[in-house]
Amino acid sequence: MTPTGNRLCAMFLGVWLGLGVIPAAADTQVAAETKISSFTLGNGMEVVVIPDHRAPIATHMVWYKVGSADEPPGKSGIAHFFEHLMFKGTTNHAAGEFDRAVAEIGGNNNAFTSYDYTAYFETVPADALERMMSFEADRMRNLVLSDEVIATERDVVLEERRSRIDNDPGALLDEEVNATLWQNQPYRIPVIGWMQEMELLNRTDAQAFYDRYYTPNNAVLVVAGDVEADAVKTMAERTYGRIAPGPDLPPRERPVEPEQNTRRTVTLADERVSVPSFSMQWVAPSYNTAQPGEAETMDLLAEILGGGVRSRLYQELVVRKHIAVSTGASYSGTMLDDTSFTVYGAPVGQASLEEVEKAIAAEIARIADEGVSTDELEKAKKRFVRATIFARDRQSAMANIFGSTLATGGSVRDIQEWPDRIAKVTPKQVKTAAARYLVPSRSTTGYLLPLAKGGN
Amino acid sequence: MTPTGNRLCAMFLGVWLGLGVIPAAADTQVAAETKISSFTLGNGMEVVVIPDHRAPIATHMVWYKVGSADEPPGKSGIAHFFEHLMFKGTTNHAAGEFDRAVAEIGGNNNAFTSYDYTAYFETVPADALERMMSFEADRMRNLVLSDEVIATERDVVLEERRSRIDNDPGALLDEEVNATLWQNQPYRIPVIGWMQEMELLNRTDAQAFYDRYYTPNNAVLVVAGDVEADAVKTMAERTYGRIAPGPDLPPRERPVEPEQNTRRTVTLADERVSVPSFSMQWVAPSYNTAQPGEAETMDLLAEILGGGVRSRLYQELVVRKHIAVSTGASYSGTMLDDTSFTVYGAPVGQASLEEVEKAIAAEIARIADEGVSTDELEKAKKRFVRATIFARDRQSAMANIFGSTLATGGSVRDIQEWPDRIAKVTPKQVKTAAARYLVPSRSTTGYLLPLAKGGN
Repeated sequence: MTPTGNRLCAMFLGVWLGLGVIPAAADTQVAAETKISSFTLGNGMEVVVIPDHRAPIATHMVWYKVGSADEPPGKSGIAHFFEHLMFKGTTNHAAGEFDRAVAEIGGNNNAFTSYDYTAYFETVPADALERMMSFEADRMRNLVLSDEVIATERDVVLEERRSRIDNDPGALLDEEVNATLWQNQPYRIPVIGWMQEMELLNRTDAQAFYDRYYTPNNAVLVVAGDVEADAVKTMAERTYGRIAPGPDLPPRERPVEPEQNTRRTVTLADERVSVPSFSMQWVAPSYNTAQPGEAETMDLLAEILGGGVRSRLYQELVVRKHIAVSTGASYSGTMLDDTSFTVYGAPVGQASLEEVEKAIAAEIARIADEGVSTDELEKAKKRFVRATIFARDRQSAMANIFGSTLATGGSVRDIQEWPDRIAKVTPKQVKTAAARYLVPSRSTTGYLLPLAKGGN
Repeated sequence: MTPTGNRLCAMFLGVWLGLGVIPAAADTQVAAETKISSFTLGNGMEVVVIPDHRAPIATHMVWYKVGSADEPPGKSGIAHFFEHLMFKGTTNHAAGEFDRAVAEIGGNNNAFTSYDYTAYFETVPADALERMMSFEADRMRNLVLSDEVIATERDVVLEERRSRIDNDPGALLDEEVNATLWQNQPYRIPVIGWMQEMELLNRTDAQAFYDRYYTPNNAVLVVAGDVEADAVKTMAERTYGRIAPGPDLPPRERPVEPEQNTRRTVTLADERVSVPSFSMQWVAPSYNTAQPGEAETMDLLAEILGGGVRSRLYQELVVRKHIAVSTGASYSGTMLDDTSFTVYGAPVGQASLEEVEKAIAAEIARIADEGVSTDELEKAKKRFVRATIFARDRQSAMANIFGSTLATGGSVRDIQEWPDRIAKVTPKQVKTAAARYLVPSRSTTGYLLPLAKGGN
């Protein structure tokens, strides 16, 4: 595993996950076999066990309830930087020892940081589970944070930022679109951090961050795989259970977004761009902030409008009108605070970006004005739920669902009841949500445009 | 004085002041008569005395080095809210007593809050100076912050926000333009606060803010008028000098702005708007963050480009082309952190907003490409310095210059040497600054547009 190479892809996994909360019990047949257990260790660490006996492997994840949106002002990037530091040495193991132990038994491991959480995982033969717990429990509290380690790894994340963000016009644009959509809520700050703040991150910052957030009572252990709950509990008590709890953290109350009154645009023209594209975003409630049924409605609205090849946007713009090479919609519901709903598109052939944008706006207006039929909604529910069945077939996806939900204010029960709540969404709710949230005069649009050489 | 009525106008005085640091010694003849003294009391309170014997009056100001940009996350509006609370009762004086004492002797008083400072002032007969000091010193530490006082005054500032911001499309737009220009630096947060955060401000917040920032070692006393430095010193020691210093505050290091890579727009269309208008802004260094000579150059660039009826924008768009009813440029140099440079315009007659915008862009490009002549620059320096002479003729303006400069990292010497630094600015510096800072593809523009009734 090369930390530089793998870490950033992982960093945005949280966003990918957010595209839909995938239910544990979407397929009732499989659900009946899957008896999910959850309990709390004496020191406050939450544990979820998801048995899956199809193969003798286990996915072991530790989720810390801290992400970039929890960072102190001026210290952007420290959550992700800290994720890197967790791969350094501890008082018991040299740097690289944990990684090698995983590789030697044919497993794989990595970590990712998002706005609301930071997670570490290993997928290994099931009989190596306790060893993973022992390593993971060790680095929860025994990391050695020397000035040298900090300086070296800071160079790594700075280089990561340069190569993945600063050299990519699309990534640069996304960053500024985000910071334009969110004017108060900390999701406006990039997960990787602003360069000038990353450069100043130091040992004192890292130690304070570690001591505050890396404690068993701020973590969720998720184990999926060829395991039994009782055995997991015993192993967890023997490893994590020995760690003293940290001081209780205050509730995660962050600045919230004021009402948006304007239409905002952010434009980047760059020589490296060949096909123009745009994405338009709105603030929307998340599963954790929504009124009952509202987040489920947003998930279905995204599915109907732009959730795949059967969606209205794809059918209208790509199949029927042949004006777009790509188009779609997405909703990131699994967030602690209010989240965003996005539509996007890029023209094809002789079509202009403006045409694509107008066609997308027309589809949104059509839902807001005329609503959707019961038939269309029910088909969308089926497609949506079917997609989740594919997802839950992957052990790590299941672990991700539970970890991300529990780290953003949800419960095991929320996940289990989710298919029923999706089933209850009505056509009227979809129409109301489109009319209420997808208002053109209160949107934020990013334009990525080609630029002739030498232009400005 | 009605606090509700007067307080908000005052709140933006800081911005007005920022349009130019007005020098103490611009007119050397007057400067020779004006012997400015500055010293520090034993408890760390800075004092500046500006004798002005033309009339038997004195302006007494206390500047606290705290403004909205120093507020804790999620507590926006507390600096301005606290300014209101300072007019409530203390352990020694009932609410309203201070105001009445000023009114009874024919004086006037008020206060204002800006991003970097909060200031309180009284203009009174010079023989009432010590009494003012006594009142002002009293409320620096003896304010009674009860839940009742907090609740009542919170309603006042909430109503102030509703009437002055939420009911005014231009003010709403300005707020969101600001939060789009600044994506990390706290100037993105409105001085009055975001509604949903103002609603939650409480006694605990207010007490913590008071105890942290309202101390003699975080304040600057400025006295201008029919006074002598020695007498002021004696009175200041007898009043302010008795207050124990607070704990030293850490340096005012705030999150700074990342490099801007995009062109951003913010649009508000409203039925109440009759003439469309726009304003375009850029991040620019302030007197406190600039390289030597750069802020002075920005001041002169604003003067040449759009500083009044002799400016290029006015002459070209209003006088020659008859396409604009208003146009101009401004630079707010007196800020602790990086600041903004603004151009604006509104069309007249048959002209469109787009025409006005293009004409302004052409004038900016002309300076960036061709520069300015020595003659034009020298005339601008003269106009600019002359404007400051009118300003310094007002006693309160002088006090404002010293207070705002000292509260944003400047010194008395900076003010005294400022005319010489302005004199040294070269045509080449003006051209370089325009080319470097006023780049269209890295700008933020606000559009205020009319809206037909029933539109969206």
